[in-house]
Amino acid sequence: MTDESLVLKVGDIGEQGLLKRLQGFCPPDIVGDDGAAIATQPGQFLVVTTDVLVDGVHFSDRTTSPQDAGWRAVAANLSDLAAMGATPLGITVGLAITGDTPVSWVEELYEGMIECLQRYDTVIVGGDVVRSPIITISITAFGDVSPNRIIRRSNAKSGDAIVVTGFHGASRAGLELLLHPELRENLRDADRKALIQAHQRPKPRLDVLPILWNILDFQSPVPSPQSPVPIAGMDSSDGLADAVVQICTASGVGGRIERQQITIPPAFHNWISPEKAMEWMLYGGEDFELVLCLPLADAEILVKRLGEGAAIVGRITNDDDVRLVDIAGKYPDEIITLDRGFQHF
Amino acid sequence: MTDESLVLKVGDIGEQGLLKRLQGFCPPDIVGDDGAAIATQPGQFLVVTTDVLVDGVHFSDRTTSPQDAGWRAVAANLSDLAAMGATPLGITVGLAITGDTPVSWVEELYEGMIECLQRYDTVIVGGDVVRSPIITISITAFGDVSPNRIIRRSNAKSGDAIVVTGFHGASRAGLELLLHPELRENLRDADRKALIQAHQRPKPRLDVLPILWNILDFQSPVPSPQSPVPIAGMDSSDGLADAVVQICTASGVGGRIERQQITIPPAFHNWISPEKAMEWMLYGGEDFELVLCLPLADAEILVKRLGEGAAIVGRITNDDDVRLVDIAGKYPDEIITLDRGFQHF
Repeated sequence: MTDESLVLKVGDIGEQGLLKRLQGFCPPDIVGDDGAAIATQPGQFLVVTTDVLVDGVHFSDRTTSPQDAGWRAVAANLSDLAAMGATPLGITVGLAITGDTPVSWVEELYEGMIECLQRYDTVIVGGDVVRSPIITISITAFGDVSPNRIIRRSNAKSGDAIVVTGFHGASRAGLELLLHPELRENLRDADRKALIQAHQRPKPRLDVLPILWNILDFQSPVPSPQSPVPIAGMDSSDGLADAVVQICTASGVGGRIERQQITIPPAFHNWISPEKAMEWMLYGGEDFELVLCLPLADAEILVKRLGEGAAIVGRITNDDDVRLVDIAGKYPDEIITLDRGFQHF
Repeated sequence: MTDESLVLKVGDIGEQGLLKRLQGFCPPDIVGDDGAAIATQPGQFLVVTTDVLVDGVHFSDRTTSPQDAGWRAVAANLSDLAAMGATPLGITVGLAITGDTPVSWVEELYEGMIECLQRYDTVIVGGDVVRSPIITISITAFGDVSPNRIIRRSNAKSGDAIVVTGFHGASRAGLELLLHPELRENLRDADRKALIQAHQRPKPRLDVLPILWNILDFQSPVPSPQSPVPIAGMDSSDGLADAVVQICTASGVGGRIERQQITIPPAFHNWISPEKAMEWMLYGGEDFELVLCLPLADAEILVKRLGEGAAIVGRITNDDDVRLVDIAGKYPDEIITLDRGFQHF
């Protein structure tokens, strides 16, 4: 018998450690983006992404109705497709459920999923239902994209502008308001509702894709469906800071984010301190915006077309780190690392 | 407050009851086969299938090593693809795992998955790893098939021969041997090992597809990739009896299975009673053979090419039931219904 204390447990290496080991079982060219892109036919890639959500870990009746849990689960997966440039084809739902769950709870969960899917013109195509001591929801979403439009984390180049497609920190603020209702003081009721909505009903930014392609096709000297579009990106599900670091790491480049350029959710003014605001905007997570790296001229047009909340927050550099800088000189430069990011385990 | 006793629980309606309600959330033309078939491009369908496996419900360290659990989970999903006529493109794995699981257990699970995938020339393309109080494995497999080769449960026509691609009952026998080792009496050691192997390492019958297409293309008066192939079928994961009833129900036809035509695993002779053998062959489940309904002439060629274990076990009829008949007259006719089939809940 092996000494129990010598056996390495999953808890010892955490989710990220285990994921890294398990990636050794996948083809190396497929790993590393929000989803996997697989060539199925000439001129077509299938993009696939999977999320597993566990009761009490990823959702909870305390902050989330079954409808909202359903919406959020779908939104997270559609956001992964958007982050790869893919148009959704459908999702499958694997549901592990306890025998004492009310049937109405399950139906409300599916209602929330369908609400989100319909908004993005897609459907549940299949699934599985099994008995389990704990509710677990596994969603796999798949979409398609032409090879020249795949957005990858590894595509960033020095000089690229770093674009956010909307506000960050609102989802985290909404969660805090749900957990600590006393925070509503100093907050207008409409703002409170909007922040909670940002947490409960995040919107995957599939709407960004046609705007992006339109700009790039127009800008391209020879508009051709064959010419690869050099767009880097991912979604900000684990936070804005995490997304920039992940993209820079995957691309072997550095980054520079300017504090003053990060768009502040209007409700944050006169409510929380600038320091708290910056923490939520950088590390809050679950805003499901896109973080894209592209040439400055294209970025400027994109930001203008996307409107409120969208911004160029910094630039890709040749440095070997990601740095948060303050052009006003009030705060010293800060190095952003993954350690500060969201850890599930 | 609603009276607790009035609230309908999942346990009250069971897995099948819940599944039926949830199918209302899917497009009706997609539901009802081993997987979902979605048109992605002209001339191409994507087939997707999902299984959720829960520790203690669908696998257990008592009968299944992690390698075997991994193999079986993949085999079940690849079998669903085979049952639709689809060639695998890849799988995703969503793993919910307890912190105290040895890392080696997880790696062995993935080794078993990879062993099975490699045999069928496919790969893990992505996944998710999350913390959970109970181990849950969600696998989504996807493959492609041209529209004229999709095998559907609803394609059966009166007069079709019902073909099994191999022996049934062996997986159930292997499980019984693992749970009750004393049953090995009267059994040759090689037979015992083969039956246990049938349970631990079932083989999805993807190998049947090229043989089937070859016969149908050759038989067709005008071999054309456009002409739809009228093949009905599914896999026998929930038992041979279940498969025939499911196909007949989906096709609105009846069926007639002849006791004497069901191929008996050689190890069953001189080991178990004919009644026990028939029970395991009809209701055992998890053999992952294909049950196909096709014109008699094609069926005869298919059975000959597939070799040992394959057989024409009956015919599709215009009756409104599925009947097990004994041409020797020893047993009375028996009506086969889904109630007797495998119930997960």
